[in-house]
Amino acid sequence: MSLYVMKFGGSSVGDIERMKRVAKRIADKQDEGHRCVVVVSAMGDTTDELIDQAKQLSSQLPAREMDMLMTTGEQISIALLSIALSGIGRDAVSYTGWQAGFRTDETHGRARINEIVPGRVLEALEKNKIVIVAGFQGMTNGGEITTLGRGGSDTTAVALAAAIKADVCEIYTDVDGVYSTDPRIVKNARKLTEISYDEMLELANLGAAVLHPRAVEYAKRYQVKLVVRSSFNYNEGTVVKEEASMEQGVAVSGIAYDKNVARISISGVADVPGVLARVFSKLADVGINVDIIVQSGVLNGEADFSFTVSLDEMERAKEVIRQIREELPYREVTSEDNLVKISIVGAGMVSHPGVAAQMFDVISSLGVSIKMVSTSEIKVSCVVESGKLTEIIQALHTAYGLDTDQQVFVGGPQERR
Amino acid sequence: MSLYVMKFGGSSVGDIERMKRVAKRIADKQDEGHRCVVVVSAMGDTTDELIDQAKQLSSQLPAREMDMLMTTGEQISIALLSIALSGIGRDAVSYTGWQAGFRTDETHGRARINEIVPGRVLEALEKNKIVIVAGFQGMTNGGEITTLGRGGSDTTAVALAAAIKADVCEIYTDVDGVYSTDPRIVKNARKLTEISYDEMLELANLGAAVLHPRAVEYAKRYQVKLVVRSSFNYNEGTVVKEEASMEQGVAVSGIAYDKNVARISISGVADVPGVLARVFSKLADVGINVDIIVQSGVLNGEADFSFTVSLDEMERAKEVIRQIREELPYREVTSEDNLVKISIVGAGMVSHPGVAAQMFDVISSLGVSIKMVSTSEIKVSCVVESGKLTEIIQALHTAYGLDTDQQVFVGGPQERR
Repeated sequence: MSLYVMKFGGSSVGDIERMKRVAKRIADKQDEGHRCVVVVSAMGDTTDELIDQAKQLSSQLPAREMDMLMTTGEQISIALLSIALSGIGRDAVSYTGWQAGFRTDETHGRARINEIVPGRVLEALEKNKIVIVAGFQGMTNGGEITTLGRGGSDTTAVALAAAIKADVCEIYTDVDGVYSTDPRIVKNARKLTEISYDEMLELANLGAAVLHPRAVEYAKRYQVKLVVRSSFNYNEGTVVKEEASMEQGVAVSGIAYDKNVARISISGVADVPGVLARVFSKLADVGINVDIIVQSGVLNGEADFSFTVSLDEMERAKEVIRQIREELPYREVTSEDNLVKISIVGAGMVSHPGVAAQMFDVISSLGVSIKMVSTSEIKVSCVVESGKLTEIIQALHTAYGLDTDQQVFVGGPQERR
Repeated sequence: MSLYVMKFGGSSVGDIERMKRVAKRIADKQDEGHRCVVVVSAMGDTTDELIDQAKQLSSQLPAREMDMLMTTGEQISIALLSIALSGIGRDAVSYTGWQAGFRTDETHGRARINEIVPGRVLEALEKNKIVIVAGFQGMTNGGEITTLGRGGSDTTAVALAAAIKADVCEIYTDVDGVYSTDPRIVKNARKLTEISYDEMLELANLGAAVLHPRAVEYAKRYQVKLVVRSSFNYNEGTVVKEEASMEQGVAVSGIAYDKNVARISISGVADVPGVLARVFSKLADVGINVDIIVQSGVLNGEADFSFTVSLDEMERAKEVIRQIREELPYREVTSEDNLVKISIVGAGMVSHPGVAAQMFDVISSLGVSIKMVSTSEIKVSCVVESGKLTEIIQALHTAYGLDTDQQVFVGGPQERR
């Protein structure tokens, strides 16, 4: 008998029929002899509808009151799911975030969890109840209702799994698991059996949106075993854990891409110490995140450098650069869009020399020039023009031996190696 | 500067436009220099929609989970109303029932208020905020969310008004106030300027549904001055308070009727002591409320008696009577529907002899026979066949001098006497 946390997102409980299917799924898990704590999001479009109503009432949306409003979405879900379980003869009990013991800081709209006091959850489990907990929400010490912001329901599930020492935290989603790359781009993309927290973090941050990076960080910190799987079928999903032993032989586990990228270049900057620091602290002050930074060689006491920002922050970033020209003289600031950042991710990269070189080769052989490069222990990212995105990813997928061979795939991906 | 509790029902906040109108109304009250605490119900059909979803999921609806579900309706209302107020530049804060300090017993679905701990409400008032409180809900000492059941939002408003020592509790509804009788039946029905708690209680219990009896009881117990008025216009409403001084000259304040009535007659009962007690305790055991009871004279050691129950409980009541025939022999049990109970209510009745006799006269003169009579200090009720309901009420309304004379009505009803 294991203790499971099962998290179902908004689309998994999008309507009454899906709610029933989720209830059945939970009952199945119980019938296998396990204890279940379920974390659930607001149904389908509920959240958007509530925001829409609020916008009709005020141009400014006070964060505290929006939290009051938004948390009703999950509260409806937990109550209905509990009722659905009782409809098939199961003993279930639902708890809001505050009832389940989620204590947060006071940052309405994107609160951080300070503590979980799961006494009531554990008591209900003792009584063999299925426990349903509202995702995405908590309460301050002062009794104010808060929401956890983006990725909040994933984080609720993982944090609760850590607090109650669950054996597994299953994240049910609308895909079968974590894929080697975007299946919409590469037909032979394969579902990964296992992936490490660090790899998952890189993929999550790179926009492979099955799992929120915040939840992965939480899982890594508290060593919570995650499983990402589909709520629409019983296929085995992808296990996310500390070290993905069976995948160790592979250099590259996944390939991700991010189209939301723009490059800003500043040329002819006086090469005095601290120049970069000043530029990037100014950008940080206005909340602009900088990703890859490349400084080219110094010539005649002048340096050129470039960096990437989100595409939607490109103009704002240039404006900041223009504003600091007085204190930080430069010759010119230019920007470039129509770019994509392609990244290969793999914990095995460290022990496989030449992985990065192979990536550059593949991209070059398609006649595409690499504009920027960034590397970490388990990741290599290249910024290129977006025109040949599909071909590049397809070629990399093949080059790193990630293509699925359907005939061999039957036994699971790890058997094809 | 007075402290107001303003209660708005579901139809008053039925859509976004109405929500805006309510916000404006509250702002007007604040502009008059008053402090405002607002109690609000779920928007329009929200509650019915939630119940409908629950029914699709389960044939049995667990009370605790239904409370979890239903309370979201008011939570959405308070958040949106608070946002609407912020949209017109007002500083408002919303509180759920538990946040506002409503502590109840553990009877899910129809909890009773044990205590109100309104610290947060008072603190927010100190900071000149408009306080919005969710009606209909509370929390047990164990942290379970409860609903107060029927009339819950009215009761929330009155109980909160008592707890924070508000000067007035205004109940905003879709009618202009309390009328001398149903304006749909009597065109000249007049709006009462004032009415006493006891009169209001009788009228409320008799189905003049502007105010829930439970809320009136609460108001009477804690001497909360109530005003029933329309949320759709600025007409003065009806004041409900301990003694309605200006109306004291009137014998009858209002005429109510109730079509949900059936008569059950048991004939040939052995006239032994305790017979009635046994019958009515059996009925009470299964939750059937008995209203008027009439025992006719004893003949040859046998008695006949009859009583009224709700029309929808008639068959169940007869079934109970049949079940106890063994232990309590009788000759026959019969029932009668197509009845109506007509009641005249007035605190001045005591000091006006002949009021009841006048009622019987009016009814008889229309050729209608009176089947049952019941009287209290401030009420006379007659059960009659329902056929001439309109004529009877019209005639009583005229006979007791209640008809509005539009020309004299201008200055308010009390001036026409």
